[in-house]
Amino acid sequence: MRNKIIGIIGDSLEKPELNKIAEELGRLIAKEGYSLVTGGRYGVMGAASKGARSIEPRPETSKVIGILPGINEEGANPYLDYVIPTGIGWARNQVVVLSSDIVVAVGGGAGTLSEMSYAWTYNKPLIAFQGIKGWSNNLAGTILDEKRQEPIIKVSSPEEAIAKIKEILSKL
Amino acid sequence: MRNKIIGIIGDSLEKPELNKIAEELGRLIAKEGYSLVTGGRYGVMGAASKGARSIEPRPETSKVIGILPGINEEGANPYLDYVIPTGIGWARNQVVVLSSDIVVAVGGGAGTLSEMSYAWTYNKPLIAFQGIKGWSNNLAGTILDEKRQEPIIKVSSPEEAIAKIKEILSKL
Amino acid sequence: MRNKIIGIIGDSLEKPELNKIAEELGRLIAKEGYSLVTGGRYGVMGAASKGARSIEPRPETSKVIGILPGINEEGANPYLDYVIPTGIGWARNQVVVLSSDIVVAVGGGAGTLSEMSYAWTYNKPLIAFQGIKGWSNNLAGTILDEKRQEPIIKVSSPEEAIAKIKEILSKL
Amino acid sequence: MRNKIIGIIGDSLEKPELNKIAEELGRLIAKEGYSLVTGGRYGVMGAASKGARSIEPRPETSKVIGILPGINEEGANPYLDYVIPTGIGWARNQVVVLSSDIVVAVGGGAGTLSEMSYAWTYNKPLIAFQGIKGWSNNLAGTILDEKRQEPIIKVSSPEEAIAKIKEILSKL
Repeated sequence: MRNKIIGIIGDSLEKPELNKIAEELGRLIAKEGYSLVTGGRYGVMGAASKGARSIEPRPETSKVIGILPGINEEGANPYLDYVIPTGIGWARNQVVVLSSDIVVAVGGGAGTLSEMSYAWTYNKPLIAFQGIKGWSNNLAGTILDEKRQEPIIKVSSPEEAIAKIKEILSKL
Repeated sequence: MRNKIIGIIGDSLEKPELNKIAEELGRLIAKEGYSLVTGGRYGVMGAASKGARSIEPRPETSKVIGILPGINEEGANPYLDYVIPTGIGWARNQVVVLSSDIVVAVGGGAGTLSEMSYAWTYNKPLIAFQGIKGWSNNLAGTILDEKRQEPIIKVSSPEEAIAKIKEILSKL
Repeated sequence: MRNKIIGIIGDSLEKPELNKIAEELGRLIAKEGYSLVTGGRYGVMGAASKGARSIEPRPETSKVIGILPGINEEGANPYLDYVIPTGIGWARNQVVVLSSDIVVAVGGGAGTLSEMSYAWTYNKPLIAFQGIKGWSNNLAGTILDEKRQEPIIKVSSPEEAIAKIKEILSKL
Repeated sequence: MRNKIIGIIGDSLEKPELNKIAEELGRLIAKEGYSLVTGGRYGVMGAASKGARSIEPRPETSKVIGILPGINEEGANPYLDYVIPTGIGWARNQVVVLSSDIVVAVGGGAGTLSEMSYAWTYNKPLIAFQGIKGWSNNLAGTILDEKRQEPIIKVSSPEEAIAKIKEILSKL
């Protein structure tokens, strides 16, 4: 049986408020034995990866995967177990989303916005943090278009997020 | 010298209000001798393509190009001079944007939202129609993140859009 | 009705023997009113594009399209009517092939080899020049695997190639 | 520190001779604690994945990753720890290659040929099995073009392959 993968998307810039959430969420994801996929870079991606690797001992089913835009590991954060360089630029956002059983957005700029759009279009369960700066907050609780009816799930804490993740995975 | 390409993005569903704008904008683009690129499908894409082909005689430098997600011309509207099937799914949204000298959004759902995000990320001039339903209206006049400072250019009519297009092209 | 597109693939390095063939083939393609698609760069791609643009007057249905690996027109030859930057690296070889009604190989190294493989896999009519150095010669008249039964069509001159192209298009 | 990834490419059809090699090679790779990446489907890909998962206990650093052409796990073999659906069709061959520290070819048709071409173009260490049917045999010991000087490394057994892999990794 294959391992469960949770995708975390968000700012690539270092924003302490967001990084704190991402790191704790990464930790909770790993603690449950889930794997983490991100775009492999810094900011929210790096913080979540760091959190996921901080569990000791690490569950055997919990690895950290980074899916990069370039043709090699340039720009990768140092917390990745697996580097997947795609060589397809920001089109790699599609691959991040498709690799995730559930996508969770923490803040985020235009890159994150494209990932949330892809998650919506590809019908992935989508969770967004509210109460922080960035696109996850702007879109939490809304629908992106008429093709789906359930709004984007809004959460306010890593604990709430992991509860939602477990609930969704139990039904997949 | 290569031909100028204007990208039009927007709803793939048929919405008369949006189609009317798109068709007229396609017509104005062709009249100026510019080429049109879209995602090659229906709705705003089809209407803009139809408009661009309605000019008689058609300027030699004005062609209609459709960049499709699939591996063949399935789902293409009938107004395309050139079909570019990419086989990369919605990641083709990146190619639509990169092929455009300027991107213009007319309404739009999650797919359009990903294209507006890409246009922003890849630093393309981005024009959005306001006063209509969809993401072009929601984002007109805003910034998507701190990486660019000029807000998305807002327009309210095809005439205003073409004036902006000519102005931007004169400076490129 | 959309325009016919012939894809020419081959060396990106300047090899006079190959360039001469490519330029003449580009000229014959344009003379028939077909459009040309290439990877948009130099060598065989540039020579074919140059040839296609050398016809005076140019047929209205004959344009030169370059599908590039990068995110802008960097590295493009100067003979393109349309530049399609894909931003997906050498994965753009898939797009070159899928955009072509027929693919013609003139010499070529590893990049061309991947394009011939894609043409085969995607079931595109595939013509290869023999009697010259490169992968087109090595594979002309062979089958790449058991999934197709007709061998790659071998030709020895631009005149023979254009005759085959016309014959194939008449049956599509 | 990230885990080492060996890519195995080859026939997607079931060919007992090739599957036997692939399964044993997968086993040896896992035994060394390396991870395996493939295109995620059947034939050589499935056999290698099966072999890699057959080690008991499995080394913590040895996982099996499948990088798929479609948008979900359709067509995936049952031996994958991680499924990475790319949604980019056979352009995913680029991602398989870029994710690999070393690429090993076992037989193979046109798809494998495109992967060997990519491995060459992206300057990846490339090992090919000789003495069997398919492109790995045809290209073992040859150069694909003048851009690299060392020929493709030829091997005749899984034991020889793993020895080469260890030697190459020790120098990376």
